[in-house]
Amino acid sequence: MTTAPWRDPALTAAARVDDLLSRMTLEEKTAQLYGVWVGASTDGDGVAPLQREMTAEYDWDELITRGLGQLTRPFGTAPVDPALGAQALARAQRRIAEAGRFGIPALAHEECLAGFTTWRATAYPVPLAWGASWDAELVEEMAGAIGRDLRTVGVHQGLAPVLDVVRDPRWGRVEETIGEDPYLVGTIGAAYVRGLERAGIVATLKHFAGYASSAGARNLAPVRAGVREFADITLPPFEFALREGGARSVMAAYTDTDGVPASADPGLLTELLRGDWEFTGTVVADYFGVGFLQTQHRVADSEAGAARAALEAGLDVELPTVKCYGRPLVEAVRAGEVPEDLIDRAARRVLLQKCELGLLDEDWDPEPTGRIDLDSTANRALARRLAEESVVLLDNPDGLLPLAPDTRIAVVGPRAADALAMLGCYSFPSHVLTHHPDVPTGIEIPTVLDALRAELPDAKVTFTEGCGVDAPDTGGFEEAVARTAEADVCVAVLGDRAGLFGRGTSGEGCDVTDLRLPGVQGELLDALVATGVPVVLVLLTGRPYALGRWQGRLGAVVQAFFPGEEGGPALAGVLSGRVNPSGRLPVSVPQVPGGQPWTYLQPPLGLAGEVSNLDPTPLYAFGHGRSYTEFAWEDVEGSAPDISTDGSYDLAVTVRNTGDRAGAEVVQLYLHDPVASVTRPDVRLIGYRRVELAPGESRRVTFRFHTDLSAFTDRRGRRIVEPGDLELRLAASSAETRHTTRLHLTGPVRKLGPDRRLRCETEVS
Amino acid sequence: MTTAPWRDPALTAAARVDDLLSRMTLEEKTAQLYGVWVGASTDGDGVAPLQREMTAEYDWDELITRGLGQLTRPFGTAPVDPALGAQALARAQRRIAEAGRFGIPALAHEECLAGFTTWRATAYPVPLAWGASWDAELVEEMAGAIGRDLRTVGVHQGLAPVLDVVRDPRWGRVEETIGEDPYLVGTIGAAYVRGLERAGIVATLKHFAGYASSAGARNLAPVRAGVREFADITLPPFEFALREGGARSVMAAYTDTDGVPASADPGLLTELLRGDWEFTGTVVADYFGVGFLQTQHRVADSEAGAARAALEAGLDVELPTVKCYGRPLVEAVRAGEVPEDLIDRAARRVLLQKCELGLLDEDWDPEPTGRIDLDSTANRALARRLAEESVVLLDNPDGLLPLAPDTRIAVVGPRAADALAMLGCYSFPSHVLTHHPDVPTGIEIPTVLDALRAELPDAKVTFTEGCGVDAPDTGGFEEAVARTAEADVCVAVLGDRAGLFGRGTSGEGCDVTDLRLPGVQGELLDALVATGVPVVLVLLTGRPYALGRWQGRLGAVVQAFFPGEEGGPALAGVLSGRVNPSGRLPVSVPQVPGGQPWTYLQPPLGLAGEVSNLDPTPLYAFGHGRSYTEFAWEDVEGSAPDISTDGSYDLAVTVRNTGDRAGAEVVQLYLHDPVASVTRPDVRLIGYRRVELAPGESRRVTFRFHTDLSAFTDRRGRRIVEPGDLELRLAASSAETRHTTRLHLTGPVRKLGPDRRLRCETEVS
Repeated sequence: MTTAPWRDPALTAAARVDDLLSRMTLEEKTAQLYGVWVGASTDGDGVAPLQREMTAEYDWDELITRGLGQLTRPFGTAPVDPALGAQALARAQRRIAEAGRFGIPALAHEECLAGFTTWRATAYPVPLAWGASWDAELVEEMAGAIGRDLRTVGVHQGLAPVLDVVRDPRWGRVEETIGEDPYLVGTIGAAYVRGLERAGIVATLKHFAGYASSAGARNLAPVRAGVREFADITLPPFEFALREGGARSVMAAYTDTDGVPASADPGLLTELLRGDWEFTGTVVADYFGVGFLQTQHRVADSEAGAARAALEAGLDVELPTVKCYGRPLVEAVRAGEVPEDLIDRAARRVLLQKCELGLLDEDWDPEPTGRIDLDSTANRALARRLAEESVVLLDNPDGLLPLAPDTRIAVVGPRAADALAMLGCYSFPSHVLTHHPDVPTGIEIPTVLDALRAELPDAKVTFTEGCGVDAPDTGGFEEAVARTAEADVCVAVLGDRAGLFGRGTSGEGCDVTDLRLPGVQGELLDALVATGVPVVLVLLTGRPYALGRWQGRLGAVVQAFFPGEEGGPALAGVLSGRVNPSGRLPVSVPQVPGGQPWTYLQPPLGLAGEVSNLDPTPLYAFGHGRSYTEFAWEDVEGSAPDISTDGSYDLAVTVRNTGDRAGAEVVQLYLHDPVASVTRPDVRLIGYRRVELAPGESRRVTFRFHTDLSAFTDRRGRRIVEPGDLELRLAASSAETRHTTRLHLTGPVRKLGPDRRLRCETEVS
Repeated sequence: MTTAPWRDPALTAAARVDDLLSRMTLEEKTAQLYGVWVGASTDGDGVAPLQREMTAEYDWDELITRGLGQLTRPFGTAPVDPALGAQALARAQRRIAEAGRFGIPALAHEECLAGFTTWRATAYPVPLAWGASWDAELVEEMAGAIGRDLRTVGVHQGLAPVLDVVRDPRWGRVEETIGEDPYLVGTIGAAYVRGLERAGIVATLKHFAGYASSAGARNLAPVRAGVREFADITLPPFEFALREGGARSVMAAYTDTDGVPASADPGLLTELLRGDWEFTGTVVADYFGVGFLQTQHRVADSEAGAARAALEAGLDVELPTVKCYGRPLVEAVRAGEVPEDLIDRAARRVLLQKCELGLLDEDWDPEPTGRIDLDSTANRALARRLAEESVVLLDNPDGLLPLAPDTRIAVVGPRAADALAMLGCYSFPSHVLTHHPDVPTGIEIPTVLDALRAELPDAKVTFTEGCGVDAPDTGGFEEAVARTAEADVCVAVLGDRAGLFGRGTSGEGCDVTDLRLPGVQGELLDALVATGVPVVLVLLTGRPYALGRWQGRLGAVVQAFFPGEEGGPALAGVLSGRVNPSGRLPVSVPQVPGGQPWTYLQPPLGLAGEVSNLDPTPLYAFGHGRSYTEFAWEDVEGSAPDISTDGSYDLAVTVRNTGDRAGAEVVQLYLHDPVASVTRPDVRLIGYRRVELAPGESRRVTFRFHTDLSAFTDRRGRRIVEPGDLELRLAASSAETRHTTRLHLTGPVRKLGPDRRLRCETEVS
């Protein structure tokens, strides 16, 4: 018996898939285009479709006889021992392979944003914390660790990272983003993708594109954006992640932009993504997104119509489970309403990916090998480092921090003694276990209170909760005030509870109408401040909150986003001084709760002055963060400032640690374009470098600015570099410029292609 | 001596202007393109440029030797007796005519939105109140009266109406708009224009276009909108006003949309406006808007560059005063940097308009004729009718209203006894006199308190202010609560103070971060409600405020916007029952203060359900309003529901007043498009008719729906009618459907041109 060409590893993947497709029935090809939402049972015995997701018309055993494209979240939403889960997944894959004519397993995907979202897996800091670290290399390491863990248990694809650029901080999913600047999101997002992909996992860029701009910050509300905002703010992180990260999958966003749903937009999913950007991987639906074209967007009048619209746009895979792409699609093809070519095009992409993953090979073996430990010591060390780097010291006007070792500390607040306070919505415990309060989280998560007591054994530490995260009860204020009055310092640990759809104050579906601290936490803080005892505000939040009300009245302000399982010790280290804070804000912290949306990427008209009584200037600017040491910025030197519109310019600065503690400075480079043919943000980030410095040490940071970085989308939709003056600003934040250089660009307007430079190369010596 | 051709009234205007232009120097042509901001002095002796607006380099006597295109606000910003002002304007015009070589006077413009914005002129209700009346005919009458008054004093052009469609109610200028629906704004705006133009005044459509969508509702902030939102929401009112109203001037908006400033957008000001829409009048700048291209938008690097960008776009006239279009422009033309053709093009438009206005005729005479009374009895009667029709009874659950004649009434609130509470920002008293508290307003403005005492002479009426509009002091609560406790009913009159740039809580530059009632008025209302005495909330506001906090706890809620000088008696009439309220909301009243922007024109995804914890459903929907009588909707009848994509459909309903009071019902027609190729609002207004009915009377209202009204802008930017099903909903508000008809459109997709039907014709029999 000869091996069929599609089984022959000596042939190209394209040839193998062509052969395979020619052998498949319509049903078999279509079956490659959908997933089934499964969940590993706790006894490790097989994978069973979740009842709620499967309609009565589908029978699992019958369904898989046609093959199955995807397995959705095989580790499910119940606590499953990872080793048993891996075995269950392998068994399910074997059943799928045995049931179909070709023996092809499914491509199994899982959530993995801030760590594999399953029981007993490391919960890393959330993306907003990655943004705060300004440390792409460390994020890449973390993603590599996540990828290796996914591989170990038989998962092929991770539904991460989120590359949405924050446009309205009230949105519940801000915690899943890397921040409000496309360059920061792009560079760190690309590093994450690189880490995941190098570990052999298919990274999925989401949400393509526009989702973060939903009107009023309501999840899934329509997106108001023009083509230039879309091209210059929304899309660049995806370009970064494809070009620098090599992502092999993209998820279509739920939302519509200016009336066109992303899932039914050929201009986006095909012309731009596959045409201009030469993407060859798969485009997958956000969960239920194909069906939404009929039921919500109403651009299709049937399930088959929704399937057709999505396939025509270039959306290859329906997730999480078979609906429009199942029987309705097959019947529509048979009826001549959907061209079979569309099925072939999508199936080819899916099968090519399976081929590259080895899933078409005869020696394919789903059995897990090696020891399964999803929360290894190495993972925890990574989680710790990233947590430490992500803590932002917003203010410390009188040097209240670090705390003395023998201080009397009143720890107050609903986030001080809750392990879940460390985790974002896409961690397994927050995602799932808030349903099951009696189930252990499966990982060790020291609270701030635990960690502070361990960190400062000689301190006298009391604790009172004061209030709940979002409960209206103020009955606990009295005791909190009493404990504070007896202390030298109060550490108020406030913030969010991450959760899904209304279970949290931050997270998917947990949008807010303004940026007031949740519940009565603001009132608690008022009461603590009124004692006169200095208050250190520690924030564990999924978004920035308005802090103007307490301006000048707090002893210190520490912003952690959700720092993950090692966040407690990281924060305790910052409070004690063991860790010198080095985080910088990836989002602006506003003065007042209302007035949104706002980010720092604003053109000058209406920014300040007499035209509105509203002053949107944030309390703490994008890029802001303090240290326990001080840095001098010296010897700024640039190359010749007259360059062509295709030229480059080198700018160097020496950063010296002039204090007596080791610390890290983040050197930021902003572009100010004084005159352009369309309005431009007053400043925008175009480069940065995090520099670790021992006391007295100095390092020279050189930025190689290329004019490509000044490009923008003009009135005709072309990305161009214009001649004229530019200012490069070396800065400690978007509002704190240390040095300004004026460049003069000469020559013609230059039109850039999709191969334009995205990154400002930096060197440190 | 023969008459020059340009003086010859027998020739066409075009021929006259061609001749005139050929005789003019560059300086003389350019001088037609700018205004000078002048102000009549109180002694009637001439018009002198305001010091603050004229730079030292210009000398008035020297300047006018080149002629002068425009006179900006000759009635100025100080209280000037109208007759003396008219004489001063005539004298100034004579000086201008005598100083130049051609004897051509300036075109004088004034503000006139809710009445001529000068001392002793009638202050009509503001546009939001016009919207609430749903009575275009009455608005046209009012505009006619405004126009006649402007003519009497020698003004040629009025800078009104505002056709911006509300996109974010936090914006300070919401009071100047007609509401959140383009059909309502378009129909009522067109009526206003018709009234002004038929009186011989050049109406100025503003702000063209996009201004109302500024991000975060900050005045002049950038506008995030795509081309479809722009085409289907922002632009239609301008089409209405040009086609149905015959407006002869358009004002370019300050803002940029997706990076392109309106004032420098040839696509908007020339291709669309003059190309597609065949507009032949003048485009004028918003005050200082040309200069903003350099100083704020930074799309030009000099004053001359700003002038060139504006002229190229099609902006003909710089206002309020000569800056970029003066010396910098002349020098740039001389230097070959700006083509003289651009000057000629703009000057031709200005001179054509002057020719049509008779300003090029030898018998031109600026002297005012006839008696000048800008607040005539007829004006007041009009102001009263419109005020009465604009009051919206939001709620009256237990029939607390109308009040019994002998009730004990505690009138409370900072808006009850202040005449300025009736007026919007663009009334003379609010615009100017808030600077000069000792100057009388010049017109009689009964307060709600005055009017209520006059209306109910047998009632026992007490008054306490309770608090200020936006002061933090709660010291007055105690007395207010005490007076309320002694009364049968409390009438709480709360709301805004209109003013400019931070002097008000509503008005230009008075934007808010959320929709909480200003100051401590919400807390005052809490205290009043807590007494247990039923509270009638009367709102005099420039925008909708969130009222969810008091849902089910108020005896009645009456929403007046700023109802003008006769608003007090109108409100007292509603409270007493003399007037049966018939207003309907032109804007949604939200539940909660945050979560903006929101209007009712939302596609379904994200509207409600599980995807966000935010529920944007308003407390009172667009179109909502109650009456003291009841109406039955009977005998709905339609023509054949199968029509072509170029067909029409007649839908008739009989509305019967089944109560025992005369009243008016507003029959509203909404379109629901179940499936379209882009996402569509769940419903949108496409027709309406206000019907006055005596007790027992019935009338038949017939809507002739043409498929043009179902058109929208498709993915390729074409305005099309698609085949398929449509639903027409006869409704009492956007949320209260009385009857649904399903139509089936067959035939090809039909592309519409700029001559598409805008209006749903209605008949009443």
